[in-house]
Amino acid sequence: MSEYALAIPPELLPIQESVALALARVEKTFESALRSDLPAVQRLIQHVETYRGKMLRPALAILCGMASRPSHPGAPTPRHPDVSDSHITIAAVCEMIHMATLVHDDVLDEADIRRKGATVNRLRGNEAAVILGDYLFSSAYHLCATLDSLTAARLIGQTGMSLCAGELLQLHHREDLSIDQPTYFEIVRRKTGSLIAIACDLGARQSGAGEQTATRFGDFGMALGVAFQIQDDLLDLTGNQTLVGKPLLKDLELGKLTLPVIHHLETSSPHQRGRTLELLSGGRASGAAFARELRGVLASTGSLDFAAAKARDLVAQAKNLLAPIVDSPAKRLLLVMADQVVARAF
Amino acid sequence: MSEYALAIPPELLPIQESVALALARVEKTFESALRSDLPAVQRLIQHVETYRGKMLRPALAILCGMASRPSHPGAPTPRHPDVSDSHITIAAVCEMIHMATLVHDDVLDEADIRRKGATVNRLRGNEAAVILGDYLFSSAYHLCATLDSLTAARLIGQTGMSLCAGELLQLHHREDLSIDQPTYFEIVRRKTGSLIAIACDLGARQSGAGEQTATRFGDFGMALGVAFQIQDDLLDLTGNQTLVGKPLLKDLELGKLTLPVIHHLETSSPHQRGRTLELLSGGRASGAAFARELRGVLASTGSLDFAAAKARDLVAQAKNLLAPIVDSPAKRLLLVMADQVVARAF
Repeated sequence: MSEYALAIPPELLPIQESVALALARVEKTFESALRSDLPAVQRLIQHVETYRGKMLRPALAILCGMASRPSHPGAPTPRHPDVSDSHITIAAVCEMIHMATLVHDDVLDEADIRRKGATVNRLRGNEAAVILGDYLFSSAYHLCATLDSLTAARLIGQTGMSLCAGELLQLHHREDLSIDQPTYFEIVRRKTGSLIAIACDLGARQSGAGEQTATRFGDFGMALGVAFQIQDDLLDLTGNQTLVGKPLLKDLELGKLTLPVIHHLETSSPHQRGRTLELLSGGRASGAAFARELRGVLASTGSLDFAAAKARDLVAQAKNLLAPIVDSPAKRLLLVMADQVVARAF
Repeated sequence: MSEYALAIPPELLPIQESVALALARVEKTFESALRSDLPAVQRLIQHVETYRGKMLRPALAILCGMASRPSHPGAPTPRHPDVSDSHITIAAVCEMIHMATLVHDDVLDEADIRRKGATVNRLRGNEAAVILGDYLFSSAYHLCATLDSLTAARLIGQTGMSLCAGELLQLHHREDLSIDQPTYFEIVRRKTGSLIAIACDLGARQSGAGEQTATRFGDFGMALGVAFQIQDDLLDLTGNQTLVGKPLLKDLELGKLTLPVIHHLETSSPHQRGRTLELLSGGRASGAAFARELRGVLASTGSLDFAAAKARDLVAQAKNLLAPIVDSPAKRLLLVMADQVVARAF
């Protein structure tokens, strides 16, 4: 369960172990669904393994599936609750779509690096990345269609469209220094929230949850997903680069304004706003001094605190949404995971 | 029906008109399936209209649907046979997947041009192209899932995977001067044949055709699709650039060896082979003189004729596959279209 395994209360260790076992099955399903009969193609597909996701979406699909089908009150909690093959499939489908977007994001992000001069190798890698991403998308839809559920196929197709619409909206607002909060949230709900929401929704649905309960789990996932993205934004600005595992300030370098920056530009005095715009347009590549100055500027309007509070609010909303769900170890682990979304340092 | 409307026997004009009416419905379905509620996104989606396909796949889906559900013997042929909404949907799904690959092919192909220096605008366009292609793929799968057919969803997912595997295999063999004919046909069957085959298969299936008949129409589409690709190869080498509407010799420029070149390298003397390899590695960008010399070299081993004969053979195979299908105007139009695949100059 990677980082989601941290700080788990001891009584939840058995359910955490169940999820870990299920995630191992998800990885197997993932690999066998991608397998090609062509050896040259299979070698290229194995490149996908270099993009390992955090398995957040599969873990949520499995836990929401468990939490919407708790044992009868008073019955002993089984050490390893059954996780059906259809849950494993849904989990693998969501991770595959997530991976496809990661692979294609890399193509988009590298464009910037490429402007500074590229090797043929990098370009060749780029071409493979476009097709590999397409292969992942197609495999996800194919795997989803192996379930006996047209509803799942429709919802997954819809989510793919929503994801891409979010990315297109983000592209439209690249370098847009006057992007507002409603637009930011529209982008994030679609780009990040929609897939996390559908992982939770379909996890519950595969356990036989009705429309209302599935939607409740979906709303939980949406709130959590948006909080997750805000935390990512914050880590990009203030994180420990070693822990985050990638260069910081990448969002700004790519012309993406995140919540703290948007809040700052919305709330600062005209004079300060002018100075910040100058800082943003001038200093993007100037490293540590720029990062320090930017953090100071954002702190002066309380914008980092504002974003952190917003993320915490969303986590609280998410947890509230689960209030009517019957208590179970799976539900309790979901609540712990929700807290970890904003507590994580990577 | 664009170029497929040429040289139609007069008695087939009514059925051709029916197909044209159905294709207009396909375009409407296509547009409404892509529509976004976000104005900025909708404007980007409209860029997709700059990529107009030949509507070959929709026309085949509709005609195979008609041909596998002919009127009873002796009954008068209706002037406009009914085309069901599900046929329109299948047709739009296939065109959407085709369009997605066209949009992404452009990203791949431009990589080469980009090596020679790119503007930011072109790169920005590239980023939009990656996401727009993903949006098209997702919309195609979503639209397909609106049909009440898990079989269609599975077959379309499988076809997407096959398409991408073909592209990956092609990428693996880029600049591979010793690629052989079996590998060439493997690439073409997956990359071009699979989607044309499934358009025919699903067109028949939506008319209630059984597995055997649907597969027969699918095999017809596969043979036709491979012939279509060989004709494309030939036009890239010997076409009239004004008619073809794009620069010639693009395949070689992109390191893709096509059937005439592969045949030539397989059959020429070691001395000639050496000279041709020198020509290929030296002269790619050297324009008209290079094109003339290459055509002469390919003609010297009968490689252009070989490829043309192979395409004609495949068309004959395709037509033979339809022999057991009851005669109907739709079937006769399919046979005419098959001939046009190798007769076309663009």
